[in-house]
Amino acid sequence: MPADAHAFLERWHHVVRTRDRAAVADLLADAITLGAPPYWEKLEGKPLVHHLLGIIIETIDEFTYHREWIAGSELALEFRGRVGRRELQGIDLITLDDAGRIRNLDVMIRPLNALEALRDRVAPRMAEYLAAQR
Amino acid sequence: MPADAHAFLERWHHVVRTRDRAAVADLLADAITLGAPPYWEKLEGKPLVHHLLGIIIETIDEFTYHREWIAGSELALEFRGRVGRRELQGIDLITLDDAGRIRNLDVMIRPLNALEALRDRVAPRMAEYLAAQR
Repeated sequence: MPADAHAFLERWHHVVRTRDRAAVADLLADAITLGAPPYWEKLEGKPLVHHLLGIIIETIDEFTYHREWIAGSELALEFRGRVGRRELQGIDLITLDDAGRIRNLDVMIRPLNALEALRDRVAPRMAEYLAAQR
Repeated sequence: MPADAHAFLERWHHVVRTRDRAAVADLLADAITLGAPPYWEKLEGKPLVHHLLGIIIETIDEFTYHREWIAGSELALEFRGRVGRRELQGIDLITLDDAGRIRNLDVMIRPLNALEALRDRVAPRMAEYLAAQR
């Protein structure tokens, strides 16, 4: 059975709007992969991706979704926001699994200075998290 | 009358595949705006945007489109390619006018090193072009 993208989207918008980190986890597949804006290599696995998404949601101010596209279990969601003084526009490209959870998420952001600002704020917190896992 | 996004897409794929720079111009509105990956400020006007798109098409190797989404006159087109040794993934967010030409195009690219490599190759050629216009 194909995923119900509209049902997913309603839940996704709710958890992002309420910044409900625990509820985000229910929308991620165990083997989720994430193509983060700064890096080519995919990040893998629910605990890592869930932690990173939590940091990103905290780091981007005035995060709001705009245009959205749905084609079967593939979604494209445009967002806008701010990191410090840097305005940004971005896209979430989402592939849902049959259970309606995110199996892959690729994120792209413009412009360059906002992407750098985001990376500079997120990378140290991720490094800290990864060090604590060892 | 709403734009026929499917007819646009067929023509767009053809001109990109054949790298037909002259034919690209027919698909751009006179007052087109472009949100380029490195910069926040929009670039404006058909001659400038047409020139820049030509340089970008020449600079990204193995440029291929992948997933695509259409919602009325709004399109999202995922692409992949390479700048030098840097693999990249990107998205074209396109708004068509009533005549089926691009009125606005926002482009986002990941990862950071490919975006920097693209900017480093395109920016000098655009500076040269702009200097020659004065």
